[in-house]
Amino acid sequence: MLKPVICAIPKLTEKTDEHIYMPLSFLTNKQQSDIQPWKILIVDDEEDIHHITTLALKRLELDGRKLTFEHAYSAEQAKDVLRQQSDIALIFLDVVMETDEAGLDLAKWIRQDLENKFTRIVLRTGQPGQAPEEQVIVDYDINDYKEKTELDRKKLFTTVYSSLRAYRDILEVEKARKYQELYRNGLERVISASTRVLEKHSLNDFCSGLLQQTMSLLKLDKPSMLVQITGVGAIYSENDFEIIAQMKGNKELDLSDNELYQYFNLAIESKKSIFKDDVLVGYFPSTGDKVSLLYLKGLSQMNAIDVSLLEIFSGQVSLAFDNLLLNREIVETQEELIYRLGDVVESRSNEAGNHIRRMSEVSFMLAKEFGMAQEQAELLKQAAPMHDIGKIATPDRILLKPGKLDADEFIEMQKHPEIGFDILKGSKRPILQAAAIISQQHHEKYDGSGYPNGLKGEEIHIFARIVAVADVFDALTHKRCYKEAWPIDKVEEFLRSAAGQHLDPDIVAIMLNNIDKAVLVNQEFTDPE
Amino acid sequence: MLKPVICAIPKLTEKTDEHIYMPLSFLTNKQQSDIQPWKILIVDDEEDIHHITTLALKRLELDGRKLTFEHAYSAEQAKDVLRQQSDIALIFLDVVMETDEAGLDLAKWIRQDLENKFTRIVLRTGQPGQAPEEQVIVDYDINDYKEKTELDRKKLFTTVYSSLRAYRDILEVEKARKYQELYRNGLERVISASTRVLEKHSLNDFCSGLLQQTMSLLKLDKPSMLVQITGVGAIYSENDFEIIAQMKGNKELDLSDNELYQYFNLAIESKKSIFKDDVLVGYFPSTGDKVSLLYLKGLSQMNAIDVSLLEIFSGQVSLAFDNLLLNREIVETQEELIYRLGDVVESRSNEAGNHIRRMSEVSFMLAKEFGMAQEQAELLKQAAPMHDIGKIATPDRILLKPGKLDADEFIEMQKHPEIGFDILKGSKRPILQAAAIISQQHHEKYDGSGYPNGLKGEEIHIFARIVAVADVFDALTHKRCYKEAWPIDKVEEFLRSAAGQHLDPDIVAIMLNNIDKAVLVNQEFTDPE
Repeated sequence: MLKPVICAIPKLTEKTDEHIYMPLSFLTNKQQSDIQPWKILIVDDEEDIHHITTLALKRLELDGRKLTFEHAYSAEQAKDVLRQQSDIALIFLDVVMETDEAGLDLAKWIRQDLENKFTRIVLRTGQPGQAPEEQVIVDYDINDYKEKTELDRKKLFTTVYSSLRAYRDILEVEKARKYQELYRNGLERVISASTRVLEKHSLNDFCSGLLQQTMSLLKLDKPSMLVQITGVGAIYSENDFEIIAQMKGNKELDLSDNELYQYFNLAIESKKSIFKDDVLVGYFPSTGDKVSLLYLKGLSQMNAIDVSLLEIFSGQVSLAFDNLLLNREIVETQEELIYRLGDVVESRSNEAGNHIRRMSEVSFMLAKEFGMAQEQAELLKQAAPMHDIGKIATPDRILLKPGKLDADEFIEMQKHPEIGFDILKGSKRPILQAAAIISQQHHEKYDGSGYPNGLKGEEIHIFARIVAVADVFDALTHKRCYKEAWPIDKVEEFLRSAAGQHLDPDIVAIMLNNIDKAVLVNQEFTDPE
Repeated sequence: MLKPVICAIPKLTEKTDEHIYMPLSFLTNKQQSDIQPWKILIVDDEEDIHHITTLALKRLELDGRKLTFEHAYSAEQAKDVLRQQSDIALIFLDVVMETDEAGLDLAKWIRQDLENKFTRIVLRTGQPGQAPEEQVIVDYDINDYKEKTELDRKKLFTTVYSSLRAYRDILEVEKARKYQELYRNGLERVISASTRVLEKHSLNDFCSGLLQQTMSLLKLDKPSMLVQITGVGAIYSENDFEIIAQMKGNKELDLSDNELYQYFNLAIESKKSIFKDDVLVGYFPSTGDKVSLLYLKGLSQMNAIDVSLLEIFSGQVSLAFDNLLLNREIVETQEELIYRLGDVVESRSNEAGNHIRRMSEVSFMLAKEFGMAQEQAELLKQAAPMHDIGKIATPDRILLKPGKLDADEFIEMQKHPEIGFDILKGSKRPILQAAAIISQQHHEKYDGSGYPNGLKGEEIHIFARIVAVADVFDALTHKRCYKEAWPIDKVEEFLRSAAGQHLDPDIVAIMLNNIDKAVLVNQEFTDPE
């Protein structure tokens, strides 16, 4: 059984200070850094100086940390040491070595080229005349100047002690600065990531955005790391998990993966995010009963800042998720309303069942295959169910007449597109505008023989041309009171013959090429017996 | 004419580094701090030492900054100086003054009580035996130890130079740390503020939330500051400004305020936030053509971090605004759809006009006065227009019969509540659930004499009891084909007589107490001639 560490990742509260405190030590790679010795680098071309210095200082300790010594016998050697070791606390630096000013040049190199401002530099010269004290202390960014004769044990002791103190203090502040900077950068990533997540308006986009932005928040989105990480985004709803998004380029995970399934259950039970070994399970609840979940496997250690950032991100994600769900609820309510409205109208003419729904699904399919933008295609799908709304005003005696309509009755019947248009027109809402056009034009024919306005070809709005094809397809493939359902090859034949006359030949061609998809829609929304 | 500084507050982009760089100097109160002198404090009970030290160092400069000297002749005096001046760079500290260890005690006090780790302390003793060097350097957190005899001009020079360098370095890092910390805190406030703003689902809440959260972001929400600040939140839409929110407790501003109006226009023209003198105009665009605006007057100077935080906040606000507008668009589309659906049904029975809309507005008013929660009252308002949807199936010969219905016809007519219920039932959507109940029960009567189920009193859902009162009120106050509009006193009289019989007496009482509000609704939505 899994026993993961469960980290509380609550929503952001007013008291943000609580989870933001962090000991400074975490920033150093090794947790035990404070009992490591202080590193002293002795740079001198005289072997004796190395020996004497080491001997004089070997028992010295500061804050319970001993000293350790690195040795260089020329400025060039010293550079190698300094390039490789960034944690030298103090340098005793001879002036005259390879050249008369080798030591001074090295001091300059350390500050300017290596950009190291923290290591303390104590210049030691055997020939004071060579490098006059006042001149040197002004010109070079060194921390002390000593003549070698001056450095008896006592003075050496004081110099090392005060230099190490200065180094310790500045490094402590620098660590705190670095910590604040990392945190600040992290918060900027949180803001950027939650901005991206908040921009998503579909569940799919949200889940894959969440996956992507969590990776980016934790700085895991480098190609080298992506190779070893697998991840999914999922939704928990009504006691069930649904995997919505997968990380690109990796083997797909599903709920048959035992570890994944157990972790998801654990997160739901504990109502918390989980980080254990190389797995992160993100738990992002909505205010309702739905939860968005994240599973990432193959991570390396997360540091404490990462955990804090995840906490803060979590609050933002839950908010985005709430917004998205609210939006979906309203949109779905709207869809249902429109279908029911369409059904009500259909029910008067006894065309019950799923005609309305199939027609709008098939219209959507045709629009997409036609190359219409997603938003427009969705508008068509939402508006199409209202195409016959004008029939509400058609008298019963015509609408419900069992036999053929006579000429007057047919004129009366033909009023429904304009009546529908009158009902729907004049709105600022895109859906109603689209519905008004579809209602008005859905009985126009491609060759101009339709009604009410005898529009021709592309004078007829693309929405209406698509709806016309979908409408004919649905009428033919289903039983009506006056006819049986036609077999599909007869439907295809009819569509072919109507192309260019009743129907737009381009849309008919798309329909014939995608007839399987239309048949699938029929199978999904069958009529009740 | 105004010539404000316009600060670009664009949406958050990937390249966040650009606007985040900031010279460290801004954190000090005085911008010219880097040409101020370095402060040296000399603590010594011998007047001569003060004199000699000052004389020896007076020409010294570091980084173009001269020295200035403070003098204390006892540890107690020194404490006063140190308490008042936090920018002492270096202390020359005598050991023996009031007591044999006065200097050492002061060093301890500085580090521990004053918690000052930055000021450099150089101990100077005239009696080395009194305070042995090795002992002192280990026990006290001082930076150097000198015997007074040791401090010739050259040594003094080196000591001061190296000490000031160390002080400068550590202070620079500390400033950077402080800056990062301020920034980090600010970002946490941005996240918290945008969370609050994102939670708002109405334009009113959004605008007042924006006002409040901007204040909180800029740390202006302290009582002392609130007194002097006035502010409004507004929306710009279709070339017009609308003030939505005012800051509490201040004189109200409106668009007749010339300065406000000019600033708003300038922000719209320049598409940017503006900060000038004591005014901040926040410009938060949506992706559409609407802009949310903020006007705050009475601010003190904003620092560069504040400007950056506002930039980042702006991106979040614009996103929240977009979400809100999207939401409103969908909700309003839904409302319009429902009204049109209701109108369609009404139009069959020739009850054209605004009956549906008035009825749902009056129902909403009654629900609120009844004490219903906002959300429920809104649900009622949205669902009420569908109450007669079942009439869609009522045959023309009954629905359109000019005279009185006979018994059979009346039975047929009475089917519409159940037919409406059948059309609307079985949905998971709260609006459709509410509409189903209202449709089914809106002809029930309080005394049990209604149809279809003869429900009594509180067996009838509160939604239906409210709709019944609103329906009767609207029927009586408007002209129908079979009657004229009644005067209001006759309507009141009728309502009183129907209370407890046809109608819920509590709801009637509420109606009578708020008849003015209902009359206002009638005036707002009159029927066309």
